[in-house]
Amino acid sequence: MNSLYRSHMCSELNESNIGEKVKLCGWVQKWRDLGGVIFIDLRDRSGIIQIVFDESTDSDACKIASTLRNEYVIQVEGNVIRRSVETVNDNIATGIIEVKCESVNLLDQAQNPPIYIDDADTSKESIRLKYRYLDLRKPSMQRNLIIRHKVAGFIRNYLDENGFIDVETPMLTKPTPEGARDFLVPSRVQKGNFFALPQSPQLYKQILMVSGLDRYYQIVKCFRDEDLRQDRQPEFTQIDIEMSFVDQDDIIKINEEMITKLFKKIKNVDIPLPIPRMPYKEAMERFGSDKPDIRFGLELVDIKNVFKDSGFKVFADSIASGGDIRAINAKGCGESLSRREIDALVDYVKIYKAKGLAWLKVTDTGVKSPIDKFLNDEEVSGLLLATNAEPGDLILIVADKPDIVFDALGHLRLELANKLDIKYKNEYEFLWVTDFPLFEYSDEEKRYMAKHHPFTSPNDEDIELMDTDPGSVRAKAYDLVVNGVEIGGGSIRIHNKELQEKMFEALGFTKESAWEQFGFLLEAFKYGTPPHGGVAYGLDRIMMLLLDLDNIKEVIAFPKTQNHGCLMTNAPGPAEESRLRELGLELQEE
Amino acid sequence: MNSLYRSHMCSELNESNIGEKVKLCGWVQKWRDLGGVIFIDLRDRSGIIQIVFDESTDSDACKIASTLRNEYVIQVEGNVIRRSVETVNDNIATGIIEVKCESVNLLDQAQNPPIYIDDADTSKESIRLKYRYLDLRKPSMQRNLIIRHKVAGFIRNYLDENGFIDVETPMLTKPTPEGARDFLVPSRVQKGNFFALPQSPQLYKQILMVSGLDRYYQIVKCFRDEDLRQDRQPEFTQIDIEMSFVDQDDIIKINEEMITKLFKKIKNVDIPLPIPRMPYKEAMERFGSDKPDIRFGLELVDIKNVFKDSGFKVFADSIASGGDIRAINAKGCGESLSRREIDALVDYVKIYKAKGLAWLKVTDTGVKSPIDKFLNDEEVSGLLLATNAEPGDLILIVADKPDIVFDALGHLRLELANKLDIKYKNEYEFLWVTDFPLFEYSDEEKRYMAKHHPFTSPNDEDIELMDTDPGSVRAKAYDLVVNGVEIGGGSIRIHNKELQEKMFEALGFTKESAWEQFGFLLEAFKYGTPPHGGVAYGLDRIMMLLLDLDNIKEVIAFPKTQNHGCLMTNAPGPAEESRLRELGLELQEE
Repeated sequence: MNSLYRSHMCSELNESNIGEKVKLCGWVQKWRDLGGVIFIDLRDRSGIIQIVFDESTDSDACKIASTLRNEYVIQVEGNVIRRSVETVNDNIATGIIEVKCESVNLLDQAQNPPIYIDDADTSKESIRLKYRYLDLRKPSMQRNLIIRHKVAGFIRNYLDENGFIDVETPMLTKPTPEGARDFLVPSRVQKGNFFALPQSPQLYKQILMVSGLDRYYQIVKCFRDEDLRQDRQPEFTQIDIEMSFVDQDDIIKINEEMITKLFKKIKNVDIPLPIPRMPYKEAMERFGSDKPDIRFGLELVDIKNVFKDSGFKVFADSIASGGDIRAINAKGCGESLSRREIDALVDYVKIYKAKGLAWLKVTDTGVKSPIDKFLNDEEVSGLLLATNAEPGDLILIVADKPDIVFDALGHLRLELANKLDIKYKNEYEFLWVTDFPLFEYSDEEKRYMAKHHPFTSPNDEDIELMDTDPGSVRAKAYDLVVNGVEIGGGSIRIHNKELQEKMFEALGFTKESAWEQFGFLLEAFKYGTPPHGGVAYGLDRIMMLLLDLDNIKEVIAFPKTQNHGCLMTNAPGPAEESRLRELGLELQEE
Repeated sequence: MNSLYRSHMCSELNESNIGEKVKLCGWVQKWRDLGGVIFIDLRDRSGIIQIVFDESTDSDACKIASTLRNEYVIQVEGNVIRRSVETVNDNIATGIIEVKCESVNLLDQAQNPPIYIDDADTSKESIRLKYRYLDLRKPSMQRNLIIRHKVAGFIRNYLDENGFIDVETPMLTKPTPEGARDFLVPSRVQKGNFFALPQSPQLYKQILMVSGLDRYYQIVKCFRDEDLRQDRQPEFTQIDIEMSFVDQDDIIKINEEMITKLFKKIKNVDIPLPIPRMPYKEAMERFGSDKPDIRFGLELVDIKNVFKDSGFKVFADSIASGGDIRAINAKGCGESLSRREIDALVDYVKIYKAKGLAWLKVTDTGVKSPIDKFLNDEEVSGLLLATNAEPGDLILIVADKPDIVFDALGHLRLELANKLDIKYKNEYEFLWVTDFPLFEYSDEEKRYMAKHHPFTSPNDEDIELMDTDPGSVRAKAYDLVVNGVEIGGGSIRIHNKELQEKMFEALGFTKESAWEQFGFLLEAFKYGTPPHGGVAYGLDRIMMLLLDLDNIKEVIAFPKTQNHGCLMTNAPGPAEESRLRELGLELQEE
């Protein structure tokens, strides 16, 4: 990376350069004037090196050096020398050498920066985002961007080698009411009409399969106009993959090889292949989640049978109204958790709409619980047997509608693992969750909705259930879950026009509305479509996992805040009146 | 690319596979039933192979084969055999073998396609775009996409190896009135405000240089809401590059290496380095263009001096009003072009606002011309000398305002080259055009505008002219021109707050309006900015050049038409009333 300005990057220099004359450029990270000798830490992307200015030998350079301050940009020329033994700095890669500066050139001055250019900086997020250009000078932020670059590069190379073609799909696409909320882009040329920014290139990649492109990928921006949570951004990056003439096993195989090789490269961890697979139903029943963290146990236990004739009103009512009763055995927590901590767990499950959390401490002499008086001996021994309980354990029970039981206990499980600070055997536990339901019923919309999207294929043996029992139809859909985080998912797609039309019908579309919105896909399916399927990964999520970060803003150069704003540029901003007129739009009166 | 569905791609097979049992998938390109034996050309992305179904040995397969039609999708299993000598097909790569099919599986039927799936197809563009999924089945279209993929991959690898980091910049950015027209994206969360889709990541990449990222690149979608010409699209792809601690020479060096290596890889042409450089002024004077096609001569000649005392009113008036008089000697055209063809040239220059085109045929006995009576002997001999004319030549003259003279003759030069069907010595002639003017005066806006953009650095020695003679200030800006097509361009940027403010002032900004629009950049420049510069290439243009295509739609998978529409998906489309309400917008009454 040398240029007319420099011969080396700062951190490229080492013992072998001793005696060489070098030219370096960078920022002043630190300076100390020891009277007659000035030391400067010079920083560039590669790292830091110490520059020494000696008044006795290079007085001109030293004079300029005395005017330097933090973050000034300079070019120095000098000789690489060995540091005296007592001044060696083991904290930096170049710590045994320094550059004795003969001439220095001030390239730009700097005001005192409003944030501390160091990983130890504690500025609040809004300041960091406003001065993002300074925040991105921190070694950790540069590392995050550089590793992101390496990850994207690795994925591209892997897919290139496996015959995938990177094809760019449009950013200006057609709005569809199905799915999440689109960002709209008003058309000037077709006034009154709108483009949508893509939520994913789903239909384009399927069209490319109809086109015979065979294997497609793209690392591409996607957009959802939704209210933000900590791990969401209005624009996010998707690794988008589609393949023809494949079955679910083919897709899983090539993808698990790619992702485990990526983790090997970036984190040097060996993930054994094949990655285990677990049907959705099992994931829910054992872990209360469709993205289970399998680094630890604390599994759910079905104890409905134990309490099928219970005199305890809460359990009896729950069973009578079609509910479930499930428990988690929090091993050892009967002793380690205080009453106050247990009460906190009771409050915790309420976040997930559980009406309550029953608990029993298992002791040498039986169980202690606010509800023990409602349970008979047979029930207690049945419970202990089912949950494999021993003295010292704490049994936690939720009785409620089935999806509330799963959700509350699934989250309680994660909360317990946090609390108990469990040591995991492996840093990363990967899992494919398979056989998702094709539909999920929306109480709000009073209809079945696609669990993944309307282009997902049902399992062959379940197709006939689409008419009789839609809720039980399983899909050829799969998610890749790592440590309880879904990093990607996909499906085998419907590739048959009649089945696709049946699917739209099941989702409540009329034939007309299906053709109006997705007519080009149905039309395409008339002319010979290969069986195909694919996957999409969230690159931002993968980065958070690889970098052990829980804030998505740390892995994106210029992220948006919760109100969709950019604190650096102040986007979004007002539009000129004349531009709106050109678009045929006006702002609504308040 | 094997899977559970197939063992090979069609065109992967060759002599060495003879005797192997293979499984193939693809589309029926052609079928012939010769009674008892059916031949099918099976097509996938890799190419074509012949499948033979023999009723006498495999009657079940043959029965299915008899029902197949063009574009049906099938899976076949069979043995690779050698074709008999008389049936070898030299037109396809697999022409000396065929697959004797033992079993065939119909994966999807197909209706008769509305376009011919072959490069010989002559469907009109609107049909091709509507059925893009069929159009993209053509070998030429697949080749275009695959080479585009390879080009992007080559660029990425080259830049990776040279220390550049691929950083994703936002798609939802801040609208700015400067430059071309933005596509706007209304914000729901900040109702009444708008994002703009980026016209280029210009400011973000400069901010990354302020951040110390040092070397950045991105292959990224950019957007301009403009009326379309043949080689423009509302969304286009830019190869975007920025470097710190560099001078113009550094940038040119690394870029010309990259681009010539790309041409070597894709076209196997050797472009000698360094690529010649020509100042803007010279390019205009010799070729009448800032993107001259230097594959041929037909250069412009300044003949103002010859006619400085002319009695010919047109010339005299032009000179009196500050105009220019320049000529092109169309070698040999005095004999080869008919009067009608010459008249067509006269009409041609009117497209470029020239009031007229004077012409003289040079003969053994002097000149023949509609204007010869207005010229004296001294002028004629001066003209012949200046244009190096010989009998048989045709001299073409425009006298007008200087920029009209350049524009008209610059285009006339290209038109002549077309007409004369000149044989070029080299397939590609590369040229850097340098020292562009920093400003250009807009008669419309009655102010100086930035010729490139407001962040371009003036040449050091011209800075003081910014106040006194803005029109003469040269910029550290450079374009890479190939065969008269500008494929990329860039500049050294201003990296000093005061100079940047001076630049905004020269462009007519008040201090307040400059800070309101570009405050974050000016603020960033307070904290130590490295000298930096970069380049942006139009990937679509590069692809057109590499593939010898003059229609940009051929190098884009899903292009838009002139009215910004997608004929396949019918984008743009209407938005739901409720969505507009959420955005605080309403459609204007007609």
